Amino acid sequence: MIYLLVEHLRAWLEAHNLGFLRVFHFVTFQVTSAMVLGFVLVLALGPRLIRWLRRQKIGDRPEFDQEEVNKLMSMKSGTPTMGGLLIIASIFTTALLLADLHNFYVIMGMFCLVLLGAVGAADDWLKLTAARRGGSRQGLNSGEKLLFQIGLGVLLAYFTFYYGGGSEQQHFLYLPFFKSIQIPLNLAGFIVIATIVMTGSSNAVNLTDGLDGLAAGCMAIVSFCFAILAMIVGNKAWAGELLIPYVQASDQMAVLAAAMAGACLGFLWFNCNPAAVFMGDTGSLAMGGLIGYVAIVIRQELVLFIVGGIFVVEAISVMLQVSYFKYTRIRFGEGRRIFLMSPLHHHFQRKGWTETQVVVRFWLIGAMLAAMALATVKLR
Amino acid sequence: MIYLLVEHLRAWLEAHNLGFLRVFHFVTFQVTSAMVLGFVLVLALGPRLIRWLRRQKIGDRPEFDQEEVNKLMSMKSGTPTMGGLLIIASIFTTALLLADLHNFYVIMGMFCLVLLGAVGAADDWLKLTAARRGGSRQGLNSGEKLLFQIGLGVLLAYFTFYYGGGSEQQHFLYLPFFKSIQIPLNLAGFIVIATIVMTGSSNAVNLTDGLDGLAAGCMAIVSFCFAILAMIVGNKAWAGELLIPYVQASDQMAVLAAAMAGACLGFLWFNCNPAAVFMGDTGSLAMGGLIGYVAIVIRQELVLFIVGGIFVVEAISVMLQVSYFKYTRIRFGEGRRIFLMSPLHHHFQRKGWTETQVVVRFWLIGAMLAAMALATVKLR
Repeated sequence: MIYLLVEHLRAWLEAHNLGFLRVFHFVTFQVTSAMVLGFVLVLALGPRLIRWLRRQKIGDRPEFDQEEVNKLMSMKSGTPTMGGLLIIASIFTTALLLADLHNFYVIMGMFCLVLLGAVGAADDWLKLTAARRGGSRQGLNSGEKLLFQIGLGVLLAYFTFYYGGGSEQQHFLYLPFFKSIQIPLNLAGFIVIATIVMTGSSNAVNLTDGLDGLAAGCMAIVSFCFAILAMIVGNKAWAGELLIPYVQASDQMAVLAAAMAGACLGFLWFNCNPAAVFMGDTGSLAMGGLIGYVAIVIRQELVLFIVGGIFVVEAISVMLQVSYFKYTRIRFGEGRRIFLMSPLHHHFQRKGWTETQVVVRFWLIGAMLAAMALATVKLR
Repeated sequence: MIYLLVEHLRAWLEAHNLGFLRVFHFVTFQVTSAMVLGFVLVLALGPRLIRWLRRQKIGDRPEFDQEEVNKLMSMKSGTPTMGGLLIIASIFTTALLLADLHNFYVIMGMFCLVLLGAVGAADDWLKLTAARRGGSRQGLNSGEKLLFQIGLGVLLAYFTFYYGGGSEQQHFLYLPFFKSIQIPLNLAGFIVIATIVMTGSSNAVNLTDGLDGLAAGCMAIVSFCFAILAMIVGNKAWAGELLIPYVQASDQMAVLAAAMAGACLGFLWFNCNPAAVFMGDTGSLAMGGLIGYVAIVIRQELVLFIVGGIFVVEAISVMLQVSYFKYTRIRFGEGRRIFLMSPLHHHFQRKGWTETQVVVRFWLIGAMLAAMALATVKLR
């Protein structure tokens, strides 16, 4: 909004000694101030929303299949969930104020954020009301969620494909470290890849969200890294110098990513151990989807796979654990496990790490993955 | 070392298809890889050093004046201190491998790191042996420490002043937000300011080092921010574009700062709650001094005051508490307190925040100060 206002009023501002307000058109300023604003908004809205959620008794009562998880989580019952509303409100407002709202990608990103947030909120809400009715826990089932995610992924991919040129010449899949390999993507290929990335990242963040501050902290790091990448990819000179494929108009994705990084950091204020609120599916689905969309727009899907390594490994740990358990049950008559518990963070808790140790160490690994991804920008 | 090797062997490398090794001359690559290497070295050396420290029983037994601190800290006795050795070894090795060792500032920075580390280690060691003798806790007294710090500050400032031109025309004090104000500094002025900055930052980090992960995490953020600033200040084009005064040859300070950021993050692996090791004076004095020196070289002393706000506020809280207590004792016959306890982090613990909450929230504030400092780069 401010972006467009400053553009609109340029002459008037210059005439009234307010020309310095053109900083709102510098992407570096947009990005850093989006991070600060995202943080501040969460802090400002947080206490009120948490009180409201408490009154609504939107508390997550973890009742997983595995009894051990319940034991580890017993302290957590009563903490309100749906804190993701806070994150979404902050990112949305920040983008509204600071990003260029004439930018197609920004609008699509905000759309993705709100829609996936709504799916997550429906899920969280259904769980709550089920608990109220004294019945068993009943969110959306995973098939329903997946259907929404895939539908949204296809929709966004379709529009993004045609906006970005619409011909195979415009869309490539780039492999890190192999500059010479560029796989051209037609509409079908683009949609398949985009949908896999968005659905996968959305669900992976959801699985990671199991310890105080884990998902929010890792997400802050990934978003920060993608804010930097988007600034580079969206700037012809920088992209050229650093040998990364330039994508027109994608620099505004950096504003969205930075707003998300700031909102995650703000959320950590309330979410660090012992958490006063959880983000719930509301937050994890929305943020996972948005970062996936950012990666698609700046054509760095495979880098998301590396930088978001924590989320990837968490998701893989669940898949391995479940498949191996099913396989061994059929093969040997009894289900066996690879990890002491999945997702992976519970495995380390069982190994004797404290919750804070698991969380901080996963953050550190995330930070190093981000540093390595940035270190190799020019090598790739 | 690698920097000079690549320079020396350039022709040979080009001839043998190893020309890509010139990436070691790109400051962006130096900085990001220094961060990763600093992290990895701490992780690799950590377990061995911690075992060794445990055998030496170099444990910190907090016996402060205030009984309450002892109560809060009672769980911590037995945890080995002097973990700063790990940090110093990692930063030193990383700089040795990745920085340009012909750069005067790099050599001075490494000198500062090792010397202040030695002062801190002597202090930590004396405390240990005093405990062994069954006597009361006897480190260096604060006068002795201060003398070392001031001496080193004067020495470094003297050489740095003459290296950087040696005339008043070359050295200015820049004020953030007031681009037009540049205060020229003569030798005496430069030495006074440099010594205050280095001594102050060294002691402020020392005071902040009182909760698991607090000093290491805040230091990682400040170092990361100064790595970015040093890259800008040391690059004529970037400095020009972002309206920051350019300082010749100062870009290599970014490598030191990034190595420090990486080492701090690596240290957090062992230092997060519950800590397996403390950095001790060894780490806090050395790192505080080094970041002060980096700030002086890139002429951003006043920005350090903002970005390192957590350290500043912690130091001020101690000064206020002590002075007010003494004043009221004389004035009213009984000492009164401003904070429930100082340094400030204990105040919040007494307010009911958990240790993890205090630490994570102080990190978050630090991150926002860094973001704001970077956001305003162009405005200043």
